[in-house]
Amino acid sequence: MYTHKTSLRVRYGETDQMGYCYYGNYAQFFEVGRVEALRELGFSYKKLEESGIMLPVRNYSVNYIKPAMYDDLLTIETIISKIEGARITFDYAIYKEGDIKVAEATTTLVFVSKTTMRPTSPPKDFIVLFAGN
Amino acid sequence: MYTHKTSLRVRYGETDQMGYCYYGNYAQFFEVGRVEALRELGFSYKKLEESGIMLPVRNYSVNYIKPAMYDDLLTIETIISKIEGARITFDYAIYKEGDIKVAEATTTLVFVSKTTMRPTSPPKDFIVLFAGN
Amino acid sequence: MYTHKTSLRVRYGETDQMGYCYYGNYAQFFEVGRVEALRELGFSYKKLEESGIMLPVRNYSVNYIKPAMYDDLLTIETIISKIEGARITFDYAIYKEGDIKVAEATTTLVFVSKTTMRPTSPPKDFIVLFAGN
Amino acid sequence: MYTHKTSLRVRYGETDQMGYCYYGNYAQFFEVGRVEALRELGFSYKKLEESGIMLPVRNYSVNYIKPAMYDDLLTIETIISKIEGARITFDYAIYKEGDIKVAEATTTLVFVSKTTMRPTSPPKDFIVLFAGN
Repeated sequence: MYTHKTSLRVRYGETDQMGYCYYGNYAQFFEVGRVEALRELGFSYKKLEESGIMLPVRNYSVNYIKPAMYDDLLTIETIISKIEGARITFDYAIYKEGDIKVAEATTTLVFVSKTTMRPTSPPKDFIVLFAGN
Repeated sequence: MYTHKTSLRVRYGETDQMGYCYYGNYAQFFEVGRVEALRELGFSYKKLEESGIMLPVRNYSVNYIKPAMYDDLLTIETIISKIEGARITFDYAIYKEGDIKVAEATTTLVFVSKTTMRPTSPPKDFIVLFAGN
Repeated sequence: MYTHKTSLRVRYGETDQMGYCYYGNYAQFFEVGRVEALRELGFSYKKLEESGIMLPVRNYSVNYIKPAMYDDLLTIETIISKIEGARITFDYAIYKEGDIKVAEATTTLVFVSKTTMRPTSPPKDFIVLFAGN
Repeated sequence: MYTHKTSLRVRYGETDQMGYCYYGNYAQFFEVGRVEALRELGFSYKKLEESGIMLPVRNYSVNYIKPAMYDDLLTIETIISKIEGARITFDYAIYKEGDIKVAEATTTLVFVSKTTMRPTSPPKDFIVLFAGN
């Protein structure tokens, strides 16, 4: 199973008045995680869209375990856990200070053709890419 | 079961380049839903915090069914589905144009004392409030 | 001069750990102000885009006078102060609790053709609309 | 004059349906610019707050020159241009693809005591730090 790690820092604008990173902002962190995971595999999400395929999120669930605070340097672990038909599932875990687990999450996304606005197969090079992972 | 409805419009800044309301922005919509549901019951989330109790989100899961688009007028239905110990669970559904279901979601939040930073019982007037709903 | 008023409440997710509404979130409030001002005049920003004209912001300046806090009910006053060539300027003031001025701002936006990606005249019905205001 | 450079990538959630990075999201980029500029000088914005001093933004103005698009790798140049009494002014420029100027901006922030909620002098080590820059 391919696991990718990327890092980012909690911005001031991402905190809320509890002093926590607002629960809604994690969605962007997971997005960064999956985009960077794909990039490292040589796959550009940007180019995917330019080729006429969008990848909207269909399901998203997240457990918030420990709060992430302002200026915390977070590590986002992303695993591409399943590709089946038009669907791709990513699992994530976020850590701070090395091994304190902040959150874990899953998202399922669907390949959608911009032309038909219907689910579509992933591009061939994408399938080839993941055949070996 | 107490069900509350509130409305809001998708802002331009909430869209993404697919033209969809970005999946991460729904968390704010559900937050608006539960805050307004509590307000209608005579319960102020703001005052709760001022009294020393925070209510961070512990779990959040959402299914995106139809995209919400720019300027769509959304109806958020909020149900307080369970209060158990220090935990409160809200269920939500979002509709547009009357009856097109856009998303459904669940969040579990935990009453946390600002002093001890540990889970705590909801305030008494809150429990009384929900005894009858 | 046409002045429009609209209201919105500061969301929890819009606060930061100072307990203030984050300075970056005001841009969305001004966006809501201008969109609602145009809507009341019978002009839909959404339809403008569908007709092939975008209206990106070119300049934005804002003075933060008093902090807006969580759950504050804000009144946004929007004035369309100038239309000149492809440019339109809006002035704004935000108030809370009636007359406490929270912020004032100005934005200049440019009508841009989606086809040529160059500045373009506003649509004719738009010009007619503002000839009388 | 001390100039600091930092980089970040435009996230999908930061785009809008024009395909541009939404104009309101630049405020976070400038925040990242000034926080990283201070960090490189050995000064932690987080510790400043912990010591009882907040630094809210008082004025902010920005010119949007070329749109930043999804996945663009931006360079943010931050200059601490003036410290006077309780006020500190930062100037910024954002570039993409090396030398294409995306935006330029200025913010003035005010040192505010959390205890009195009134403007206050910057901490001494901060003044010393900037005496030589």
